[in-house]
Amino acid sequence: GVDKKILVIPGDGIGQEVTAWGQKVLVTIAENYKHNFVFEEGIMGHVAIEATGNPLPDETLEKARRSDAILFGAIGHAKYDNDPSLKVRPEQGLLKIRKELGLYANLRPIKLFDELLEASSIKPEILRGSDILFFRELTGDVYFGEKNRTENMASDLMIYHRYEVERIARKAYEAARTRRKKLCSVDKANVLEASRLWREVVQGIAKEYPDVETEHMFIDNAAMQLIKDPKRFDVVVTGNLFGDILTDEASQIAGSMGMLASASIGDSVGFYEPIHGSAHDIAGKGIANPLASILSAALMLDISFGLKNESQRVIKAVEATLKQGYRTMDIANKHTDNHLVMGTDAMGAKVLENLN
Amino acid sequence: GVDKKILVIPGDGIGQEVTAWGQKVLVTIAENYKHNFVFEEGIMGHVAIEATGNPLPDETLEKARRSDAILFGAIGHAKYDNDPSLKVRPEQGLLKIRKELGLYANLRPIKLFDELLEASSIKPEILRGSDILFFRELTGDVYFGEKNRTENMASDLMIYHRYEVERIARKAYEAARTRRKKLCSVDKANVLEASRLWREVVQGIAKEYPDVETEHMFIDNAAMQLIKDPKRFDVVVTGNLFGDILTDEASQIAGSMGMLASASIGDSVGFYEPIHGSAHDIAGKGIANPLASILSAALMLDISFGLKNESQRVIKAVEATLKQGYRTMDIANKHTDNHLVMGTDAMGAKVLENLN
Ligand SMILES: CC(C)[C@H](C(=O)O)[C@@H](O)C(=O)O
Ligand SMILES: CC(C)[C@H](C(=O)O)[C@@H](O)C(=O)O
Repeated sequence: GVDKKILVIPGDGIGQEVTAWGQKVLVTIAENYKHNFVFEEGIMGHVAIEATGNPLPDETLEKARRSDAILFGAIGHAKYDNDPSLKVRPEQGLLKIRKELGLYANLRPIKLFDELLEASSIKPEILRGSDILFFRELTGDVYFGEKNRTENMASDLMIYHRYEVERIARKAYEAARTRRKKLCSVDKANVLEASRLWREVVQGIAKEYPDVETEHMFIDNAAMQLIKDPKRFDVVVTGNLFGDILTDEASQIAGSMGMLASASIGDSVGFYEPIHGSAHDIAGKGIANPLASILSAALMLDISFGLKNESQRVIKAVEATLKQGYRTMDIANKHTDNHLVMGTDAMGAKVLENLN
Repeated sequence: GVDKKILVIPGDGIGQEVTAWGQKVLVTIAENYKHNFVFEEGIMGHVAIEATGNPLPDETLEKARRSDAILFGAIGHAKYDNDPSLKVRPEQGLLKIRKELGLYANLRPIKLFDELLEASSIKPEILRGSDILFFRELTGDVYFGEKNRTENMASDLMIYHRYEVERIARKAYEAARTRRKKLCSVDKANVLEASRLWREVVQGIAKEYPDVETEHMFIDNAAMQLIKDPKRFDVVVTGNLFGDILTDEASQIAGSMGMLASASIGDSVGFYEPIHGSAHDIAGKGIANPLASILSAALMLDISFGLKNESQRVIKAVEATLKQGYRTMDIANKHTDNHLVMGTDAMGAKVLENLN
């Protein structure tokens, strides 16, 4: 068995409810496979602002640095969404931890479980067989460029450096090699300088991977192609902002946002989180889908700990649960009545059962 | 009858093929309704660079200024897409004319013709009844902010001024009043200063329109909701970059990009163009869909000339053509065999017949 320290940061809204299940799955895996996972808990986001005034307290950051991996929930709160003038904001916590831990590569695998073929707004025949791995750059772009604000003007600098594009492009090409050997780089090079640098750099790196087929696509076209013909994509690499948009959109390929996990990696520790947000409209109701958090735990086992069998075991347990007809609200099909629609805890418990 | 001067700028790629049909429709309408439309032609984009070295020759801009409306095709060429280092680029022509003519509001109506319900990758039951009007801000944002480039770094300034947000928000609210009285403003206010200004300003303008229901949505969520549940949207107002992405994506709601027209308005003259691009992969093959150009002509008749009957006449002719089963490749349904798939010219000719 392996010894690992895992920091759990539930964060805001449904983060609290779903992350509990990602953690329980890790506990169960540790028991079943005789690993020693030690858990700590940290606060971040709105809950951290309420408790300390700081969306990312130093203590949380220190715990993060000395952990082997982090399981995160979600961030954000309606209060800040409704008042853009607030200066201290939950999301600053998430952006800061990404930057401080050097988490420059955000992997978002979009894979449809066969059982959810009917849960999407997209036609099953368009979806069947879709399998996309997004590499979203996570510590650059307009997210981190200089910001300015006066009474009548506001700005953010969209900026990329060569080395930032190189390292994410290499990671994406390496992954493409182990998959269907196709890479699509998404930018807006017909309008943006930052995108022209992006394209130039990717064109350069492409030469190191002659076995991978490279395609460059404008973001507007990509947003369209993704739902028109998702099967045309294998690995997609793109900047922070475009990646944010495309992966949320791509959630419809997986049936629901509630199914999508992500891994952020970079300099050292890995950071695992659902791609859904804090969803304050359903927070506290016990109806959120815990599967994205559970699948984030599966990604952690695979990517940070190299425990491929254990990771597959979790994915199979999720699959089995779906096969048995269990569904949270977001993935229930209104046109079938042999689905058992349940809340967060009941669904999480079913996955645990299937792990044993 | 009315007297109008119309500048036609076919531009690049399929722009040449489809704009001919937008123009023919205007000629036919003039004949049938005894209007006097005088046409001039102008060059812009790659074709203008080839001819003059300038993507927007002064002569074209002068013609534009003295016209009552402009029918534009498309812009862009593979040569520039493949070589991001080229300094003179076709798109600069389009961006410059938008700026010079003060075309700050880009209207993109997304409406599905019943006949195309099956042409989309989205399920018919999700689509049926969708009717969205996008207001995309068109002369600000990261498109027009200061650009910088060094060997190892590139940047574009995402910037908005209060007055820019105010004027587009007002136009969007005015339109919402004449429709289902719902407005959704899309931004990324949880991360971007420019978006926080955007949201603040829209919240202010909202108070002037208490009869319109306002919703604020983050761009990532909007990109998802748009395909998950397009019917929830009525009027959508957003910035230049987010509008570019969302409206291309929304083309799947209308069955195909080849169906979508747009109107850019502002200080004086109106500018009408399909939202599809130059599509160099199919340019010169005679298979492009002319309906977006024809529907752009219909928008011109309505918005710039106030000729509502004539505009409706064109839309009805398009509808009739689709009802008769005529389709270009992009909107043909592979699962039906009572569709007559035809090229650009045959399709355009069918619409003309239906106009008479
Ligand atoms: C909460 C927000 C700051 C975040 C982002 O935009 O990166 C989220 O949308 C995500 O995708 O992780
Ligand atoms: C060609 C390009 C510059 C343009 C844009 O991004 O505005 C196009 O995509 C559009 O939507 O009109």
